[in-house]
Amino acid sequence: MSSGEDALIARYFKPLATDPGALGLTDDAAILDACGEEIVVTTDAVVEGVHFLADDPPDTLARKALRVNLSDLAAKGAKPAGFVLTLALRQVDEAWLKPFAHALGEDAAAFGCPLLGGDTVSTPGPLTISITAFGRVPQGRMVRRSGAKPGDRVLVSGTIGDATIGLDVLRGGATAQALNGDPAAREILAGRYRVPQPRNALATAIRDYANAAMDVSDGLAGDLTKLCAASGVSAVIDVQSIPVSAAAGGLLARGAIGIEAMIAGGDDYEILCTMPDDRIEPFLEAARGAAVTVTAIGTVIAGNTGPRFLDAQGRELVLPRLSYSHF
Amino acid sequence: MSSGEDALIARYFKPLATDPGALGLTDDAAILDACGEEIVVTTDAVVEGVHFLADDPPDTLARKALRVNLSDLAAKGAKPAGFVLTLALRQVDEAWLKPFAHALGEDAAAFGCPLLGGDTVSTPGPLTISITAFGRVPQGRMVRRSGAKPGDRVLVSGTIGDATIGLDVLRGGATAQALNGDPAAREILAGRYRVPQPRNALATAIRDYANAAMDVSDGLAGDLTKLCAASGVSAVIDVQSIPVSAAAGGLLARGAIGIEAMIAGGDDYEILCTMPDDRIEPFLEAARGAAVTVTAIGTVIAGNTGPRFLDAQGRELVLPRLSYSHF
Repeated sequence: MSSGEDALIARYFKPLATDPGALGLTDDAAILDACGEEIVVTTDAVVEGVHFLADDPPDTLARKALRVNLSDLAAKGAKPAGFVLTLALRQVDEAWLKPFAHALGEDAAAFGCPLLGGDTVSTPGPLTISITAFGRVPQGRMVRRSGAKPGDRVLVSGTIGDATIGLDVLRGGATAQALNGDPAAREILAGRYRVPQPRNALATAIRDYANAAMDVSDGLAGDLTKLCAASGVSAVIDVQSIPVSAAAGGLLARGAIGIEAMIAGGDDYEILCTMPDDRIEPFLEAARGAAVTVTAIGTVIAGNTGPRFLDAQGRELVLPRLSYSHF
Repeated sequence: MSSGEDALIARYFKPLATDPGALGLTDDAAILDACGEEIVVTTDAVVEGVHFLADDPPDTLARKALRVNLSDLAAKGAKPAGFVLTLALRQVDEAWLKPFAHALGEDAAAFGCPLLGGDTVSTPGPLTISITAFGRVPQGRMVRRSGAKPGDRVLVSGTIGDATIGLDVLRGGATAQALNGDPAAREILAGRYRVPQPRNALATAIRDYANAAMDVSDGLAGDLTKLCAASGVSAVIDVQSIPVSAAAGGLLARGAIGIEAMIAGGDDYEILCTMPDDRIEPFLEAARGAAVTVTAIGTVIAGNTGPRFLDAQGRELVLPRLSYSHF
């Protein structure tokens, strides 16, 4: 989602979302009540030329299509339960389908999220992969976007900005030139774009400790703005503390990329969450147990303006855009 | 689904469908276990230029996209619980979105199937609407394709073949010429293509009386072949007894269309089911209560060859194709 999409959804589809499980279409997932537990439902589509490049390999594509949904389940504190797949194909190309299905099966097994069904249709247009995934949480325990409270610390998993650089590298942009002598860094960054690392290992810890959470898919700045809006709060972020990878850090230090582009770029598939100070220590402990790094990057404050991103000198970053926008 | 799709699915995706709820990808829906009930999951996508015409009005399109999924829930004996929507749009066109969302909301309310969430993405290609719908049945009560038994009677709801004629009419084919003087019949047949009438009112009766059921979406001949294959049986159908509308009957009588094309054509969204003789009477009674006509058209027999369609003289119909094929 992004600003144009948000407006479209608010205007046309929010009036339809009267069921309590729809959460007013303001969250990453919906809830289907079952006795004693909730089934968390999330859906994300990827379109050739929009979410992935026409020459992206079928195996990485399969993983990305599933993992963007697994990332939503992780952020909601849910255990994967399965998925359905809709595949719109121009033609049946065995050389493409075989590695696609193989990789999809590997990821389904690795994340404990089996294929349950689907639909395969022909299209004259771009390859489109739409996945609806299901997860389970105990009744009332899905972690919402809307639970952040003033005083909460803001944390993110992993590193931010790698995938947007990876996309620029794959497109032969400015960072591709800057990395000419460093094939290992190119590989790492392109890999972060092509194959997200959803933080499902962190799901239980998120459920146990976070007041609010969502996955970072459209850019940290825009996604934090959404989380704040859903919670009726604001936030102050210390830009210096935003975790970046060594590869991205090198580019930042040389001025080949700005932090603004990295926090407004999409495809991170990390988890953004907030929690009170006294839960930070056990959460960090649980995260270590899950082998996922998490970093505190700021504080939730009262207010209804967008979150502010402050540099080392306390100056507010000017962000030309907050996140990826489809429209 | 159709033969090319079936082969594709069997080869590439069936090996991934190891979860019991996937039913080996041989049914219209999957099952998510919840305590005391099952959540039935079905997904169907419609693509501009493939499943609908570029000039189909947005309101009928919205209804069709939802109703093709509601039809699956009806055939499985499930009560609608909600749906998620993925919309791949070329641009934000308010004149299109407004009637689309309005009609979708009307149908969601009419069928008790609320919007729960979704994803809106941009595409350079054809408009694509993918819906995953959920229904509920008591534990173990989802009606499968695989339960037909030799001796069962074969029944269908409503009338068969109208939608495939309606598509031909809208495309200006041979039947459009034949109906030049009959705008009312044109309207009825085109309407059957554009706005399916899913038989959700029949869901409880299906659950109470049918051994096997599926919705007829790709053509009666092909869909019955799938039901027989899933059940390990064959069937003999009396072509004379297949219910047709007055509009279609007129065209048949004048030779403007053949019954072969009508039973191999798609988009009926009627229910095909089988049940023992002694349940026919109470089922017909329940169907009358639901204001849905149902007609017995044949008998399930032992065997593993495809079903045979016999004319009034007992001759087997030669079907050049069984159903719509995407690939």
